[in-house]
Amino acid sequence: MPESLGVHVLLDLHGVEERRLADAAWLRDALVAAARRGGACVVETTFHRFDPQGVSGVVVLAESHLAVHTWPELGFAAVDVFTCGAEVVADAVAAAVVDALGAREVTTTRCTRGPRRDPRREEAEAAMAARRMAG
Amino acid sequence: MPESLGVHVLLDLHGVEERRLADAAWLRDALVAAARRGGACVVETTFHRFDPQGVSGVVVLAESHLAVHTWPELGFAAVDVFTCGAEVVADAVAAAVVDALGAREVTTTRCTRGPRRDPRREEAEAAMAARRMAG
Repeated sequence: MPESLGVHVLLDLHGVEERRLADAAWLRDALVAAARRGGACVVETTFHRFDPQGVSGVVVLAESHLAVHTWPELGFAAVDVFTCGAEVVADAVAAAVVDALGAREVTTTRCTRGPRRDPRREEAEAAMAARRMAG
Repeated sequence: MPESLGVHVLLDLHGVEERRLADAAWLRDALVAAARRGGACVVETTFHRFDPQGVSGVVVLAESHLAVHTWPELGFAAVDVFTCGAEVVADAVAAAVVDALGAREVTTTRCTRGPRRDPRREEAEAAMAARRMAG
């Protein structure tokens, strides 16, 4: 059982091909595919290309979200993926994004989100529920 | 001059009124107002109410994004705001969100994003440019 409500992974991707970072349609397809490959469920997408360059895109997930913001001129993309439920999903989606974008260098920050679960309290509650059912 | 491309602030809001966290329209209005109050420029919004409860909402900003995911039954909201440019904007938007949602307890994680700027290198480059102009 996970000890937090969800996991938020921030990825700084350096050294990504400029033409990929400038292509909103390609980024949308890549992120949707990465979300699915990581085991997440896509609800909606919204992608915008900015003038003169750069794309912002968000994939709303049943599990929370996956977002990308790009600076093609710097070869840089800031990605974040937040999923609730199984912690492995955020990590799997993050790995699939890194794989798709082909970054030369990746900096990862991983934060657990939500009220921490207290295993001792959960055990006590489970025991109490079991007693109620037996009683 | 900022030393990073942008700032990503993650807010865990505890003890928020359940009815607010269940109300997608109220949350959309609150987040759009908070983004504007913090000095950000709203591009688009997408909000979803999940069954049986919980809302996921994203406000796409010219500066990046502001997102919320709620667990009304826990009185909990996970918010994140990422803005590029002036670092004060992310902090100001975050403060406005906390104010609007009226959380009893807030946990904040603040991450700088993007290639770090090196002030010494920028100084050297500025000096070199000045020499070129003078020469």
